[in-house]
Amino acid sequence: MADASTTKPLRIGLAGLGTVGIGVLRLLEENRTTIEARAGRALQVVTVNARDKTKDRGFDLSGMAWADDMVDLASRDDVDVVAELVGGSEGPALDLTRAALASGKGVVTANKAMIAHHGLELAKLGAANGAALKFEAAVAGGIPVVKGLREGASANRIERIYGILNGTCNFILSEMEKSGADFADVLKEAQEMGYAEADPSFDIGGIDAAHKLAILASIGFGAQIDFDAVATSGITEVRAADIAQAKALGFVIRLIGVADCDIGEAGTSRMLQRVRPCLVPKRHPLAHVTGPTNAVVAEGNFSGRLLFQGAGAGEGPTASAVVADIIDIARGDIGAPFSLPVDDLVHMAPADPGGRVGRDYIRFTVSDRPGVLAEITAAMRDAGVSIESLIQQGRESAGSEVLVAMVTHEGPERHVGKALELLDGSPSLTASPLVLPILRD
Amino acid sequence: MADASTTKPLRIGLAGLGTVGIGVLRLLEENRTTIEARAGRALQVVTVNARDKTKDRGFDLSGMAWADDMVDLASRDDVDVVAELVGGSEGPALDLTRAALASGKGVVTANKAMIAHHGLELAKLGAANGAALKFEAAVAGGIPVVKGLREGASANRIERIYGILNGTCNFILSEMEKSGADFADVLKEAQEMGYAEADPSFDIGGIDAAHKLAILASIGFGAQIDFDAVATSGITEVRAADIAQAKALGFVIRLIGVADCDIGEAGTSRMLQRVRPCLVPKRHPLAHVTGPTNAVVAEGNFSGRLLFQGAGAGEGPTASAVVADIIDIARGDIGAPFSLPVDDLVHMAPADPGGRVGRDYIRFTVSDRPGVLAEITAAMRDAGVSIESLIQQGRESAGSEVLVAMVTHEGPERHVGKALELLDGSPSLTASPLVLPILRD
Repeated sequence: MADASTTKPLRIGLAGLGTVGIGVLRLLEENRTTIEARAGRALQVVTVNARDKTKDRGFDLSGMAWADDMVDLASRDDVDVVAELVGGSEGPALDLTRAALASGKGVVTANKAMIAHHGLELAKLGAANGAALKFEAAVAGGIPVVKGLREGASANRIERIYGILNGTCNFILSEMEKSGADFADVLKEAQEMGYAEADPSFDIGGIDAAHKLAILASIGFGAQIDFDAVATSGITEVRAADIAQAKALGFVIRLIGVADCDIGEAGTSRMLQRVRPCLVPKRHPLAHVTGPTNAVVAEGNFSGRLLFQGAGAGEGPTASAVVADIIDIARGDIGAPFSLPVDDLVHMAPADPGGRVGRDYIRFTVSDRPGVLAEITAAMRDAGVSIESLIQQGRESAGSEVLVAMVTHEGPERHVGKALELLDGSPSLTASPLVLPILRD
Repeated sequence: MADASTTKPLRIGLAGLGTVGIGVLRLLEENRTTIEARAGRALQVVTVNARDKTKDRGFDLSGMAWADDMVDLASRDDVDVVAELVGGSEGPALDLTRAALASGKGVVTANKAMIAHHGLELAKLGAANGAALKFEAAVAGGIPVVKGLREGASANRIERIYGILNGTCNFILSEMEKSGADFADVLKEAQEMGYAEADPSFDIGGIDAAHKLAILASIGFGAQIDFDAVATSGITEVRAADIAQAKALGFVIRLIGVADCDIGEAGTSRMLQRVRPCLVPKRHPLAHVTGPTNAVVAEGNFSGRLLFQGAGAGEGPTASAVVADIIDIARGDIGAPFSLPVDDLVHMAPADPGGRVGRDYIRFTVSDRPGVLAEITAAMRDAGVSIESLIQQGRESAGSEVLVAMVTHEGPERHVGKALELLDGSPSLTASPLVLPILRD
């Protein structure tokens, strides 16, 4: 074990003094004794950079040098590790990360977009230069799920990873459930409470969850990260009526990222990555995850189902994850960012979802006239979709829409796709149908 | 990153060929490619030992040497790491572990009793000889909660750790809840299903959970492990009627281990460790943990509440944890077993529970005669206990017991203790009262 008094301090260059950056500085100060005992050495933030040097951030930066150019942090002799807390998949964050790894400096980042888009390239660069690349804070805030998959479940073949990966969406959906209010109203409330950004499109569109899912899938399956293959849909189409129907049927609606690894013959594994609102059975642990919480389930072939749950964002939790990574580096743990040596990561082509067997919730918005139900059910029959239950919701007033919601029996996904094709363009439908898969129990 | 083809294999001596030992051998065989890629080198079980050499275990042991004396594994030149999967806090398991650490060999163990009783001594021995001591499998089966606390939450001051730490008790309590059956009947069912041992006393008496709690508290708080200070009560006194009352009040009953760290002035932290059946509010994540599952919550001062959940026992999950530890050692991670260097672990005296403020469920078994309720409520008043609700359950038949159940308002624990003292020896009470704390939300 290293002795803090005789070992050289780990010198940190920190880029980005927003919520997370300041959180890291606060955490290093408040828990310094514990952190340095665990790290086995002192941790010093020697230099910082942010866009605006003069802004009052409520934290005394006088002990740290100011780097005028962010990317310069990578070339300073007095920096061992760079903490990249700027964000953005391209631009200065990426330039800094590349430069630091190329010069053999470890990088700790909370930047899920950058890792989702460039993780493989960056891991290669780190490996070639003996530099650590760590990103616990990029997935699910303070929950140590990257470490849990990479090291805790390291003996397992992981077959499926899924979870609630976006706190904003989970807050909105669980508030809609509680209050019966519609999406737009709850979004506004979430923005006022600070749970949603002014421009919430990355969150409510599912992109943020897709970034995290791609990272988890790569670690869990030992695959080259492939963000572009994530099929993503967000929560904007979910109505109060869908949540009410789901409830009546024994489900809640959650935005779920699911990654499946189909193990074929040697070297032919494929992965299917999707982010979609799903119906979650009330007896499933994810059904009880409310508010801006994240939760990840990993199914290993020996461990069985592992669940990791906690705050998915925020200053404290994110800083907790960043500093845990820094402590690992201080202890000499360089490790493989995606759990396998980067050259062993397999390219997995996207799997075809059509053959997957499951149950779906399908909601149609129809005009109120005779024969509509017959038309829909005939299309289902012709496509081979077996209906388990069907509810037609009476219109509230003359001229208003009528909703038809159904739950299918288990069947191949392509049958549902075919049924919707048969109905495509039908004047009976007043909007595109909404299909929400039912999460396997 | 280590290259498996050029690095020396890690040679393992494995003691104990019961469920877990055979599970480890199966796992190493079935997932060998993944495991060795993650470990960066080959893992070879070179020698094994168990009580009976001739027994057919359904696994081909022909490639491994047989050690006639278990403790000899520690002195063999061809063993780098010992996997101790025998169990028992004393005896051969302890002898082997001591001998291996003393000779600089790493030890991986699933033995919670040994770690709970001798963890500090063993950690010192390991540190003195540069030998790793790892015990992920000793706590909560396949859930990587030891790693999660030790490394994942390493930047935090952990203030409270609690959870469902015994699968047998959780199975029994959740079955009682589902079926309305009494303890003895469900225990018998659990034994038939393999969820309870023939002699279940360590499980239902709370000792097994106490072992795990002591380990978690030491890691989380950076304290010297102190199993003897865990106040433990089991689930044998919980009746179907208590579960029904709890349900009516919005709670479920779970056996919960709780460790609190009271941070006093510098150097005076105290810890309170208790294993008791508790009432858990239905909105709490632990209320939805059913069957033989374990779940641990850690509250960090930056991370917030982290939840780890999964299978708490069984061949696969336990083997998963053992092999994860072996992979860590293969990767060169020796680490501090209890998260801090062993000399930095603080001795924390037990905290006084009397001043703690909380709510309790209290159930009295009384004789059916006038004045009993007045006597009980007067004692509560005189002790300063404020009653939130009280239910008297009418007797089912002449001569049968009457139950009086109440929930208190928040107040100091010592007041409840005083009330029970006032009632001690009263002829109105036909059995000792049962006090179940209500878990803070």
